[in-house]
Amino acid sequence: MKVLVINAGSSSLKYQLLNMETEAVMVNGIVERIGEEVGSLTYKANPDTDAEKKIVKKEPIADHKVGMHMVLDLITGEEAGVISDPKEIDAIGHRVVQGGEAFTSACIVDDSVKAAIADNNPLAPLHNPANLMGIDVAEELFPGTPNVAVFDTEFHSSMPEKAFLYALPYDLYKELRIRRYGFHGTSHKYVSRKVAECMGKKPEEINVVTVHLGNGCSMAAVEKGKCVDTSMGMTPLAGVMMGTRSGDIDPAIVAYIAENKNMSVAEVDTLLNKQSGLKGICQLNDMRDIHAAVDEGNEKAKLAVDMFAYRVKKTIGAYAAVLGNVDAIVFTAGIGENDDIARAEICQNLSGLGIEMDMDKNAGRKGEPHAVHTDASKVQVWVIPTNEELQIAQEAVELLK
Amino acid sequence: MKVLVINAGSSSLKYQLLNMETEAVMVNGIVERIGEEVGSLTYKANPDTDAEKKIVKKEPIADHKVGMHMVLDLITGEEAGVISDPKEIDAIGHRVVQGGEAFTSACIVDDSVKAAIADNNPLAPLHNPANLMGIDVAEELFPGTPNVAVFDTEFHSSMPEKAFLYALPYDLYKELRIRRYGFHGTSHKYVSRKVAECMGKKPEEINVVTVHLGNGCSMAAVEKGKCVDTSMGMTPLAGVMMGTRSGDIDPAIVAYIAENKNMSVAEVDTLLNKQSGLKGICQLNDMRDIHAAVDEGNEKAKLAVDMFAYRVKKTIGAYAAVLGNVDAIVFTAGIGENDDIARAEICQNLSGLGIEMDMDKNAGRKGEPHAVHTDASKVQVWVIPTNEELQIAQEAVELLK
Repeated sequence: MKVLVINAGSSSLKYQLLNMETEAVMVNGIVERIGEEVGSLTYKANPDTDAEKKIVKKEPIADHKVGMHMVLDLITGEEAGVISDPKEIDAIGHRVVQGGEAFTSACIVDDSVKAAIADNNPLAPLHNPANLMGIDVAEELFPGTPNVAVFDTEFHSSMPEKAFLYALPYDLYKELRIRRYGFHGTSHKYVSRKVAECMGKKPEEINVVTVHLGNGCSMAAVEKGKCVDTSMGMTPLAGVMMGTRSGDIDPAIVAYIAENKNMSVAEVDTLLNKQSGLKGICQLNDMRDIHAAVDEGNEKAKLAVDMFAYRVKKTIGAYAAVLGNVDAIVFTAGIGENDDIARAEICQNLSGLGIEMDMDKNAGRKGEPHAVHTDASKVQVWVIPTNEELQIAQEAVELLK
Repeated sequence: MKVLVINAGSSSLKYQLLNMETEAVMVNGIVERIGEEVGSLTYKANPDTDAEKKIVKKEPIADHKVGMHMVLDLITGEEAGVISDPKEIDAIGHRVVQGGEAFTSACIVDDSVKAAIADNNPLAPLHNPANLMGIDVAEELFPGTPNVAVFDTEFHSSMPEKAFLYALPYDLYKELRIRRYGFHGTSHKYVSRKVAECMGKKPEEINVVTVHLGNGCSMAAVEKGKCVDTSMGMTPLAGVMMGTRSGDIDPAIVAYIAENKNMSVAEVDTLLNKQSGLKGICQLNDMRDIHAAVDEGNEKAKLAVDMFAYRVKKTIGAYAAVLGNVDAIVFTAGIGENDDIARAEICQNLSGLGIEMDMDKNAGRKGEPHAVHTDASKVQVWVIPTNEELQIAQEAVELLK
């Protein structure tokens, strides 16, 4: 089976074509700046192999349909094509951000599914409409090929009420659907299963804390394969500190900033999402730049790293209390996979929770799952590259069986 | 030494006169509904002893000065007086809510101290002006008697930057003083020292998680006698779930409610402070009423208790990670001291953190410090009645030595 995975944003479209017999990536790339004066398309056939062919195009790309058409031409083209007929694609998997309470698993898209996704637009106004646009384009360009929607929130739908409800008037949950949904679910699901495989266990046999640290950062408490709590909330603003997002703050601060800076709540929301986090503290939001600044003696950069690690550490402790017993911690995504300094600082002085990192094993980057705990550590600590596209493609394959 | 302790609110004034040789309470009570049509004064001499004398008055009480004058007349009066001359009072201790970064310890009040307290009014607009009014009244009624200000924030002033800073633009910390201050500091200080005494240790020898659960709820991580983190934030809205306060929520929810309910941020703030917490979930905010409702099969009441206990449990885990090693957990204040059901639910399934509660020892109320852990528990668990007035009086005595 060949599965095309699409992640459509408001002005971008990421794609990946997978051969599910081998799980090999046949094609990947991104269409960006859709609708702008000059758009951009990046296309790689057989990426990260000796046979890699890369094509970059800079030209106006009017809309997502035009962009996807360009990609399809390349996939089936002579220069760097990998298939000869679009019909060779057996399914298209779509990342959809907000499934709300309507979706507790991936599903084959039909009109009622599209309506239910649209019904969640108010909860994810920047993402769900774009995801739906991706589905529409796929339906048009690949008539007859099944589309599968995989939700960022789905893995978290197993959370109990005490974890997903806020201590707000209960009516607001019923009326406005205010609750914790959580995001990055596909990643948390993928790495929590992968770590079980690495440990020679079934997911149902272990409790895991998954730590997804990328541009956005979130964590999950996974009990016997099921998510029981996660750090992001109704929106991806909540939880730990991120590149430009504040994570949790005293909610009274929103009104305090609005009043004292004469800002609208929408402006405060933008400040919390775009000007806060690591960037708010040290003006930098890429952890590699921040470590370089630390090496040059930048105290704000050091403070940003300390704050970042401290919040993740606290959440590991919180989830240890939630799970009662933790078998493994998994680090994943950009920072989680590549930043040994941040991992070391997070796990420092956690032996009280049974967590002992082996600094030699932790050092450097490996690009594949590897353990970084000492032999004596009660809790195993793993670094596992996430693969949301593969997880989405696998769910599509499962559904179509 | 005799110390009068005053806790002045916007329309109330709590007071207590202590004999510091014996730490006996000579007088306590409260003046309420100051400035309203009918005010109320409650006065107890030798409270909770065989010699207790109680006086209640219902009459208009124009302002705090009138109220304090009535109290002073009773203290020195024939009917139920305990001293003959106001000059027998050696010091007056005042609870002040917000010390900001200006105050890292209690201090004797002079004009510069009063100016510095007023400077913190914007951070505690409901409390600091009232506290200052209490000081003014005391200065007028007890000329020449030293006034000591003890701050709710002081014990938390030892927090490191990584714990007290929010991941917001750093300028907002400098410009608007937005940071975590924490509250209930006098209580956290008192019980963290008391538990050391109960364990036969010095405060500097142990790490403690203090759990103050009353109308307001807050927790603190206390490392070798010093607070290193606490759950309340810039304001007392943040942290765990409370009677009517939400505690932490996704900060994006403020804008979402404001927009969807057409409310101002000030109105949302009121909703989060007055209509949320236990009350938001089950319409009740007194834990005794809630337990009674649970017994009658009220599912929302059960949910409220579960949510409440779950958030405290998570924060215990977070602070276990912060402290690395925990020697004791201390429960205090109304719910913490009296609610064995809530304590049991909080500590359930925490043996992974070395916490094992003895359900027999936990059962019921004792009114004095007692341990509720099993002999095998690595972490000791204590219930300790808080005594903020005694702590304030002790600090006054220390300062005046």
